[in-house]
Amino acid sequence: MGIVVQKFGGSSVSTAAKIHKAAEKIIAARKAGREVVVVVSAMGDSTDHLIALAREICENPPKREMDQLLATGEQVAIALIAMAIHAHGYEAISFTGGQIGLITDGVYSKARIQKIDHSRITQELSQGRIVIVAGFQGVTSDGHVTTLGRGGSNATLVALGAVLHAEVCENYTDVDGVFTADPRIVPNARKIGRISYDEMLELSSVGAGVLQTRAVEFAKKYNVPIHVRNSAHDGEGTWIVAETPAMEHIVVSGCALKTDLTRVTLKNIPDRPGIVARIFTAIGAANIVVDDIIQNVMDDGTANISFTVEHGDMADLKLVVEKLLSELGGAANYNRDLAKVSVVGVGMKQAAGVASTMFRALAQQKVNIQNISTSEIRISCLVARQDAQKALQAVHAAFGLDKSV
Amino acid sequence: MGIVVQKFGGSSVSTAAKIHKAAEKIIAARKAGREVVVVVSAMGDSTDHLIALAREICENPPKREMDQLLATGEQVAIALIAMAIHAHGYEAISFTGGQIGLITDGVYSKARIQKIDHSRITQELSQGRIVIVAGFQGVTSDGHVTTLGRGGSNATLVALGAVLHAEVCENYTDVDGVFTADPRIVPNARKIGRISYDEMLELSSVGAGVLQTRAVEFAKKYNVPIHVRNSAHDGEGTWIVAETPAMEHIVVSGCALKTDLTRVTLKNIPDRPGIVARIFTAIGAANIVVDDIIQNVMDDGTANISFTVEHGDMADLKLVVEKLLSELGGAANYNRDLAKVSVVGVGMKQAAGVASTMFRALAQQKVNIQNISTSEIRISCLVARQDAQKALQAVHAAFGLDKSV
Repeated sequence: MGIVVQKFGGSSVSTAAKIHKAAEKIIAARKAGREVVVVVSAMGDSTDHLIALAREICENPPKREMDQLLATGEQVAIALIAMAIHAHGYEAISFTGGQIGLITDGVYSKARIQKIDHSRITQELSQGRIVIVAGFQGVTSDGHVTTLGRGGSNATLVALGAVLHAEVCENYTDVDGVFTADPRIVPNARKIGRISYDEMLELSSVGAGVLQTRAVEFAKKYNVPIHVRNSAHDGEGTWIVAETPAMEHIVVSGCALKTDLTRVTLKNIPDRPGIVARIFTAIGAANIVVDDIIQNVMDDGTANISFTVEHGDMADLKLVVEKLLSELGGAANYNRDLAKVSVVGVGMKQAAGVASTMFRALAQQKVNIQNISTSEIRISCLVARQDAQKALQAVHAAFGLDKSV
Repeated sequence: MGIVVQKFGGSSVSTAAKIHKAAEKIIAARKAGREVVVVVSAMGDSTDHLIALAREICENPPKREMDQLLATGEQVAIALIAMAIHAHGYEAISFTGGQIGLITDGVYSKARIQKIDHSRITQELSQGRIVIVAGFQGVTSDGHVTTLGRGGSNATLVALGAVLHAEVCENYTDVDGVFTADPRIVPNARKIGRISYDEMLELSSVGAGVLQTRAVEFAKKYNVPIHVRNSAHDGEGTWIVAETPAMEHIVVSGCALKTDLTRVTLKNIPDRPGIVARIFTAIGAANIVVDDIIQNVMDDGTANISFTVEHGDMADLKLVVEKLLSELGGAANYNRDLAKVSVVGVGMKQAAGVASTMFRALAQQKVNIQNISTSEIRISCLVARQDAQKALQAVHAAFGLDKSV
């Protein structure tokens, strides 16, 4: 049998008891004859605790030092997991991102993995050890500690799965898998058994919290199956795999809600060729992703440009915007009372009427659509934050997602 | 002006306010025109917290993983110090032991520094940055994280002072310097202005907590002056320097008490040549330091051997002793009700009557001396734990250490 890479998220290692439970799952895979590599996130809310510590010291800490600080959270967790496995009588060895040569670019707080030297891991595996790797972190080629952004442990999981040619990446969380919608908002949401990489990519990018976009991109690129499972029991979760012809019969696989969006409006910007490019080049250079771009040209020769960004990027964005406005003139305003509801499905490529079903469902609930964006397999509507929950419930019902397929 | 290496102990960085206070001291040295390197320990009781976390998981955690765990304490502190300096408008960059190439041997939990590649530090200094280094930790030549043992940050301090040819190593603590005795036990103890490396070495080895033996050995070897100071104010502390002729007039510089000793007695060990060597070779191989060795040969051809070890080494020692006894026969018993009182002074080399003054002082207090050990500049008496405090007080008074010199 081959290699399995397992990942335990922060909520699965938040207490000593849970760490022992994780150790048991790890050892079970080992006993089943597999070579086991484990990626671990920081315990429970320890990352939040470290962030709070930094904010006590400094309002806007340098990102390099923030990464140096946050990387300790996973280092604590890997050592404890290795100890727990040792207590159960098996050999384990823990490694930080730097120790396994997980090299990233130098974009602190949201670095991207460039390469992994897996020789160290395979050497330890060949000696019968279980290898524990810190998720969420790496080092630049000259040794500075970086982090991969929130949820970056999943990127570590899939990257390791790829370089080690793992049979499967098991992503242990505190939920049963990927759902047709967030069950806290849509109580009759259903667990999805299998979903394609592309669908998962779209769902992640519009708010389904289970897996980061980047992790799924990586899994798709290297065709590594991901199994999202609940660490509290042994039941099957959701398999994220390459698209199969059978999947095309499912028009809509799931829907999602994103509420951490701010709409940024730049007002009275000069309406000259090249200005828009300059604005979005500057924003892109700061590694900020924008969506829902709308431009209105005014009578006075200026334009209003609005777009949405995630709340987490606002501090960086404001710096960029201030600089731009000081050069271009104009003013900015920020609106946080927004949400985006999306439906995703590979069958959408062939099926007609998906958009109209969605719009009708929202209209029946008197939800006003502020903007629409689409991809080949996704339709997203920007709505008022106060309408978000009923919008998601309406869409979920309209596509019959509560009914088993 | 040259380089100053400053060290802030855990109690000097235990809160956000103290971290800012430390940052101010660091910046003051920078403003005075010096290049500043700072060694930082883990915040307050964070190391104890990490140890407790490990014990929750595993009774006897593997030492490699324990070091992986504990090293995070300093990593948190260096990032926060760098952030605080940044908040005050200066540039700082933090490094773990591994990041500056602080290479140690592979003895986890009490590794020894083998070399430091200071090129990274000097490069950052030359760019005007303040360099913050994690104390207490290093890496083996193949990248495993090690720790230098409790108080190992002082070893880092002095080693950096040596390789960087620093003008002075400033050791900031929560006390005013080195005292003639522990002021908590001897209220009229006096701060020592200057003390030689050898005296400090002897005092450290017999319980004066300010500086580790290893750190002082290193400072002596490379002739780096250490200035022990209080981080709460700017007053002069104690200078630890090379011996000067003037120091010989001081017969006794200070006295100290060590209470974390266990007397180990191996009973009915075969009294054959080579047995004692075998016992102490095995103990030495486990990196355990023993003292006060006493051997009594019995009538039945066996011997009783007793010696003292520090409490911290007991877990390791018991493993060695069990193995030895299974091979040699005999039995062990352990007595923790011991203390050692010592006096130290370079003038002792020339002065007569120091030992008799000490024994008389103890006799007057009816303190029974269980063993005596000496060096050229130290006399130590093993006494019952219950007599420890009055023994120290009596010795301190007998040598007039409360009177300023």
